[in-house]
Amino acid sequence: MNETEFVAALRKLPLHAGARGLEDDCAILDLGSETLVITHDMMTEDTHFRPHADMADVAWKLLACNLSDLAAKGAEPIGVLLGHSLGSNDARFLEGLNEGLVTYGVPLLGGDTVATTGTSTYGMTAIGRATHVPVPSRKGAVVGDGVHVTGPVGRAMLGYEGDPEHLAAFNRPVPRLAEGRALAPLANAMMDISDGLLLDCWRMGWVSGVTLALDSALLPVADPARLADCVRWGDDYELLFTAPADSILPAPAIRIGEVRARSGAPLLLDETPLGDPARLGYRHG
Amino acid sequence: MNETEFVAALRKLPLHAGARGLEDDCAILDLGSETLVITHDMMTEDTHFRPHADMADVAWKLLACNLSDLAAKGAEPIGVLLGHSLGSNDARFLEGLNEGLVTYGVPLLGGDTVATTGTSTYGMTAIGRATHVPVPSRKGAVVGDGVHVTGPVGRAMLGYEGDPEHLAAFNRPVPRLAEGRALAPLANAMMDISDGLLLDCWRMGWVSGVTLALDSALLPVADPARLADCVRWGDDYELLFTAPADSILPAPAIRIGEVRARSGAPLLLDETPLGDPARLGYRHG
Repeated sequence: MNETEFVAALRKLPLHAGARGLEDDCAILDLGSETLVITHDMMTEDTHFRPHADMADVAWKLLACNLSDLAAKGAEPIGVLLGHSLGSNDARFLEGLNEGLVTYGVPLLGGDTVATTGTSTYGMTAIGRATHVPVPSRKGAVVGDGVHVTGPVGRAMLGYEGDPEHLAAFNRPVPRLAEGRALAPLANAMMDISDGLLLDCWRMGWVSGVTLALDSALLPVADPARLADCVRWGDDYELLFTAPADSILPAPAIRIGEVRARSGAPLLLDETPLGDPARLGYRHG
Repeated sequence: MNETEFVAALRKLPLHAGARGLEDDCAILDLGSETLVITHDMMTEDTHFRPHADMADVAWKLLACNLSDLAAKGAEPIGVLLGHSLGSNDARFLEGLNEGLVTYGVPLLGGDTVATTGTSTYGMTAIGRATHVPVPSRKGAVVGDGVHVTGPVGRAMLGYEGDPEHLAAFNRPVPRLAEGRALAPLANAMMDISDGLLLDCWRMGWVSGVTLALDSALLPVADPARLADCVRWGDDYELLFTAPADSILPAPAIRIGEVRARSGAPLLLDETPLGDPARLGYRHG
């Protein structure tokens, strides 16, 4: 099975109402006095990082990608649980994790540690408190909304390729926690861009039952000469959201298009339908 | 680093108060109207299961060992998040997971799916609701308490070795959810036995600052001729707890010893101090 098939099969298992049909970045747990936002993300050698990566960067990024999911729901982090595979650079891993926890003021809640014989896999569960209900989902995009992104995409790609100016974007991504909290009250749909701008726009259009119409001249990319690559590479962790066209945005963001009634594909780029998600970004397996 | 060194280093990171110093099975999140109990457990090829294991059993066991941690805190499961490595037997994994979720009435909340190139690692986060506060911890054992276990140990070992009578004990362990809920109001200390009875008794005595004095004649083991092995092998998932000596227990349990003031080792077996945890059970790395 590939990732898409596996997740489709998971949807046939008993799901919690807060799982949002496994179509969102996070689960939402309504507890009366509080609404919790919960996410679990993994990183694995070869797929998410190179065998010789600095493990401090790997730990930072594991934390950052989990916090980014909370950011996309406007949640304030409460704590994280770590699933750790013991390896040869555990001390560096702990240094990077500590830097991240201190930087974002997030404490460790618990976790598990195992010995592995092969490639290492790390998991993290992040738990946050919703600052606005209803918690924005991927599927709330409304016809007439503007489509926005909080910053340029493609920086992580350039960093991965070795561009010194963008190394930090790949190794030490910044979760948009403050932006997410500011935007949550007015965003009709919001998610983080982890698998590529086009693919994530396609997904938002798909689950919202609308069409996101993007204008390539508006897309903020780190290298305009490589626009097609920048909008397909992932790992940037900017927020993608839609909001009513007349909104005064409380956080810096770039308008990249508009939401239209669904007609054919869930995504248009310069009026060209992009109907097949397979060539739009990163998918596993 | 081995597991003990790594966890010791983790304790120097910023910890949530609900992390209980990383000395308990679960984190406790007090939210005013509710107290949540949260745990994360992993299973990895070679260490926790054989490369040719039936993946349905692996999925069941991943769920069961997480629910067992909730059971040890008297918590009622709310839902689980799955961290899944795509492999060749994903369909069987899903069958076993579904069986477990249906059996225990636990829905899926979310998770993550990754492609791996090597050995597979699976993670799960289980979230439950405390049915009794304060939530029993490992460190509450009180001098004068009786020490009890909810069932025999060594069955998983015999099942692992191929004994047909005990195969299910190894492949399909049963989390003691009902027992944990019944016992939580009177247990001064409680944990599940995942790494071996002696090691887990040693740990309970250690963190409680007391000595658990066990009588070998009272230890319930699946094979009396191999008592020393049965009390060191893990994977049994019975509950270990201490309760006041005059308690009327609301769940079946076997009294195996008593809690005394700390004098030397945190564990005595037939009055012999067992001071070195290294030879008492299973530890990683």
